[in-house]
Amino acid sequence: MRAISRDYNIWIAPTAGGPEKQITTDGGQGSRIRHGVGSYVYLEEFSVSQPVWWSPDGKKLAWMRYDETKVEDYFLQLDQTHTQSTVLTQAYPHPGANNPVADLMVYDTETGVTQTMDVREGAPFSDEVIGHYIWAAQWTKDGAEVLVRRADRLQKHFDLAACSVATTTCRSVVRESRPASWAKGEAPRFLNDGKRFIWTSERTDFRNFYLYDLSGKQLARLTRHAFDVVDIVKVDEQGGWLWYTARSGDNHMLVQLHRVRLNGSDDKRLTDPKLMHRVDISPDGKFFLDVEQAHDKPPVSRLRDANGKLVTDIAASDASRFATLGLKPAEFFVFTSADGKTPLYGQLQFPSNFDPTKTYPMLVSVYGGPASAGLTESFVNANPLAEYGFLIVKLDARTNLGRGRKILDTTYKQLGVAEIDDFAAGIRALWDRPYVDRERVGIYGTSYGGTVAAATILRHPETVQAASASSPVADYRLYDTAYSERHLGLPQTDADAYERVSLLPLARQLTGDLLIYYGTSDDNVHPKNALQFIRALQAAGKSFEVQVGPDKGHTGIDQGRMMEFFIERLVLDRTPNSGGSDAPISGPSADPG
Amino acid sequence: MRAISRDYNIWIAPTAGGPEKQITTDGGQGSRIRHGVGSYVYLEEFSVSQPVWWSPDGKKLAWMRYDETKVEDYFLQLDQTHTQSTVLTQAYPHPGANNPVADLMVYDTETGVTQTMDVREGAPFSDEVIGHYIWAAQWTKDGAEVLVRRADRLQKHFDLAACSVATTTCRSVVRESRPASWAKGEAPRFLNDGKRFIWTSERTDFRNFYLYDLSGKQLARLTRHAFDVVDIVKVDEQGGWLWYTARSGDNHMLVQLHRVRLNGSDDKRLTDPKLMHRVDISPDGKFFLDVEQAHDKPPVSRLRDANGKLVTDIAASDASRFATLGLKPAEFFVFTSADGKTPLYGQLQFPSNFDPTKTYPMLVSVYGGPASAGLTESFVNANPLAEYGFLIVKLDARTNLGRGRKILDTTYKQLGVAEIDDFAAGIRALWDRPYVDRERVGIYGTSYGGTVAAATILRHPETVQAASASSPVADYRLYDTAYSERHLGLPQTDADAYERVSLLPLARQLTGDLLIYYGTSDDNVHPKNALQFIRALQAAGKSFEVQVGPDKGHTGIDQGRMMEFFIERLVLDRTPNSGGSDAPISGPSADPG
Repeated sequence: MRAISRDYNIWIAPTAGGPEKQITTDGGQGSRIRHGVGSYVYLEEFSVSQPVWWSPDGKKLAWMRYDETKVEDYFLQLDQTHTQSTVLTQAYPHPGANNPVADLMVYDTETGVTQTMDVREGAPFSDEVIGHYIWAAQWTKDGAEVLVRRADRLQKHFDLAACSVATTTCRSVVRESRPASWAKGEAPRFLNDGKRFIWTSERTDFRNFYLYDLSGKQLARLTRHAFDVVDIVKVDEQGGWLWYTARSGDNHMLVQLHRVRLNGSDDKRLTDPKLMHRVDISPDGKFFLDVEQAHDKPPVSRLRDANGKLVTDIAASDASRFATLGLKPAEFFVFTSADGKTPLYGQLQFPSNFDPTKTYPMLVSVYGGPASAGLTESFVNANPLAEYGFLIVKLDARTNLGRGRKILDTTYKQLGVAEIDDFAAGIRALWDRPYVDRERVGIYGTSYGGTVAAATILRHPETVQAASASSPVADYRLYDTAYSERHLGLPQTDADAYERVSLLPLARQLTGDLLIYYGTSDDNVHPKNALQFIRALQAAGKSFEVQVGPDKGHTGIDQGRMMEFFIERLVLDRTPNSGGSDAPISGPSADPG
Repeated sequence: MRAISRDYNIWIAPTAGGPEKQITTDGGQGSRIRHGVGSYVYLEEFSVSQPVWWSPDGKKLAWMRYDETKVEDYFLQLDQTHTQSTVLTQAYPHPGANNPVADLMVYDTETGVTQTMDVREGAPFSDEVIGHYIWAAQWTKDGAEVLVRRADRLQKHFDLAACSVATTTCRSVVRESRPASWAKGEAPRFLNDGKRFIWTSERTDFRNFYLYDLSGKQLARLTRHAFDVVDIVKVDEQGGWLWYTARSGDNHMLVQLHRVRLNGSDDKRLTDPKLMHRVDISPDGKFFLDVEQAHDKPPVSRLRDANGKLVTDIAASDASRFATLGLKPAEFFVFTSADGKTPLYGQLQFPSNFDPTKTYPMLVSVYGGPASAGLTESFVNANPLAEYGFLIVKLDARTNLGRGRKILDTTYKQLGVAEIDDFAAGIRALWDRPYVDRERVGIYGTSYGGTVAAATILRHPETVQAASASSPVADYRLYDTAYSERHLGLPQTDADAYERVSLLPLARQLTGDLLIYYGTSDDNVHPKNALQFIRALQAAGKSFEVQVGPDKGHTGIDQGRMMEFFIERLVLDRTPNSGGSDAPISGPSADPG
């Protein structure tokens, strides 16, 4: 059989062709019920794409049903580069507003019966119930249960739950709780028996692996590291090994290959901790391919045996042209986080004609979302933007991936505050370099990075003189429920947190040069974010630049246009003996309200 | 009785209160039928506001019904400065697309019968029928007929038509035709008998008055001028006089008071043709108040007798502070239109500290829509923008009001082309003044003027170096039917005319500095105009500035922000010995696509 989600209803049909059968009838745009098609907040924040799953024997069909009747619509004008524009209407829950109600449905092709699983275990839909959000179902191997992940609205408790198809009752299998911030959870990795699974948890403040069975019993702690594991590379059940990667190198960016027995014993690091490794294990588990590199060492591919012993070199990068062209290797440097203790990393790139006796303007590229990837120890190629005559900097924040959960939690209810203080600290750390012109520093970023770029020039104007903010979130009250509330709480009870991280009250502090960009078709960070930021700046009588992407989605500004802004503001306007943008102009005071 | 238009239906109720009675039932947002509420293109282009009219005896009600079933909707996002934005959905016909169908309805309160007047005289709704557009009804004094104005789609024929309430048949009373361009028509001015009326026509290529009766018979040619009459000031039926104003002064801006007998004899100009006059006739027709002024003469109020003889001075402006403050009077100058013959006027204003031995940047303010008001001979007060250190210029185009219909017709199918050539000619006419810096000229305008400002820098880059274009029409295919088609024809048959006047194909010609502004809630010139212009400039790899008005309608940019743009681009960037925006920057070629 095959399942079809059409016009928000579920149909099934024989795979070989034949008559279709409609399974649900209450779905539709008018009824605001969706079967098998994700509701916006699930699509964006829970990686839901096609929430329909056949049982292993192909006789039962599970799917998600979303009830959007209480969710407010938002509107987005599309196709403005056509004569006849259109409008997107979408149920989009803003922080504090009603979320869609998700339910797990199971249809039995033999009995023709559709059942609703009791994912909230008899409790009504509420903010508190672990089952406010439900996503990512999967069938157990025996087809008796459907596993789902579920959480309360503030996502402080995360469940892997199992729902019995026979009884429709659901139970928690493993629960992760982090009441002082928010809990994270991932997909279980099942062993062949379909009952035991490897589980990833941050409960020790670092990411480690555990072995559980479906009854919820913990069978083993597979790792006990004070650093983060990264990925499961291979599970060798016959040999009894788990191969995985972890941040056990000389710094958190240097990812290593480990091997540990499936009872948690004999953990061994198999790679050189001074380098970063990408690995691939041979099918028989006797060898692995090891691509090793660092930010200043181009990749080399080697074949190693199961103990990490070199068997043969396979290939080495030829970087001779890099030197011939005069390109400069990136420099990694260490600075101290604004917390006064955490060592953080920065990356500095130079133009090919770099002369340390001269001074240079500098551009800082930022993103910085909580638990987002920061710098890596992959080989850093030349940056074309440096060739405009700029130093190019990337900075880590303490809240980047791989620094442990305790540090990440410091971002709770102050999203972006600590990170921005760190970026400012990273810039200040470069002030004592004679070739850095601290009066000509720009910062740029997109989305979260756009917010960060704007917040940095507003909150730390001593560190940057120009900022390019693309598609920024101006105020998390304009973003969606699941992301904003996870990090900030509910606006009803945590208004101060929302206010603390909003760009809008900071607008009046603008002193440098700011460029704001947004795409008119951005259905993620809606244009109203940029527009409300623009209005706040206008109300404060501030001057700034705007660029717009007609019919563009959640995008960054064209890089050529951005460089033009930085060249104009950091080079031309600041050329010695020029009029400069601060030259006094006689005339009546204008009201740029 | 009173009439109510509610939810697109007509209701009536006793004025003193009492039960309401619903007269129409087919109106509504869903049915796309409107009773008594104008459809967009009528509201915007035909000055329709509340199309509901009681008969003189209050027993019959006439109203317009608009059928929008075949009109496409457009969408506009509103309230983007709020958390929850909204959307405006409106039937808006773009050039070449389906127009709403207007009908004239009459309800008889005594019989309870509603009748549809046969405004198209049996012909179906088509582009050609004189009755494609119908607007502005009024009852005859005897209540037997309802007069309406009507036109074919291209508005080459304009009718004053009369519809008999008894028979529902309609007939043309007076028709104005101008097949080589477009016809204009105005409201008839009835005499007391309710049968004779004064009619305004351009049929001689100048605006003149005629006397007609409702049978359609021309009773008299009241004026036979080779200049335009302006307004009827007073009709003195007892004395047999028509008092009116006309452009019979030394130039078309100098409006004079005339008096003529109602049979067209004894026309006499009563005012000094060297001045501009605003007048008010005494109720007995024996005196008139004459406020006279010129661009360089502040207003003086005088009382004159019916022959124009001075009776007494009443008040004179005290302009001594103007001189004390050092403010400079505006200079009017004459230049030759780009047609090589028509003399046109320009106005030049100076900063109060003007020094003719220095050179100044110059700003040109433009609008220039066909038949729009240009310069006037009203006293010109000081312009605060001049105090920023700029010369401020206003220029007439040959297509401004008051130059006669033949000149206006030259704009047909090339809207904006001739005007812009004239503006460029006006700027060139100032090049030989030693204090004008022809390399530092800016131009600005809003709406039609925004289009003109942008088109001038694109088509005549030798005359302006910077342009501020607010809410411009980028392409008339994005505007509405009635305005665009009147001036350009149908896109289906006159695609070349639309292309000729579009900014989009000109984008690649940009060499100067351009600032584009639009309001996100502009329901007249939709934001897609600015956005498509922006996209065309981006596609051509051009640099330009953008400013946005969040939730602003059809507005101009904040003047302080605009002046900042001009100061930066025309003063700071061009300061001698500065880096200047043309300084070479080393680096790879960027692709600002």
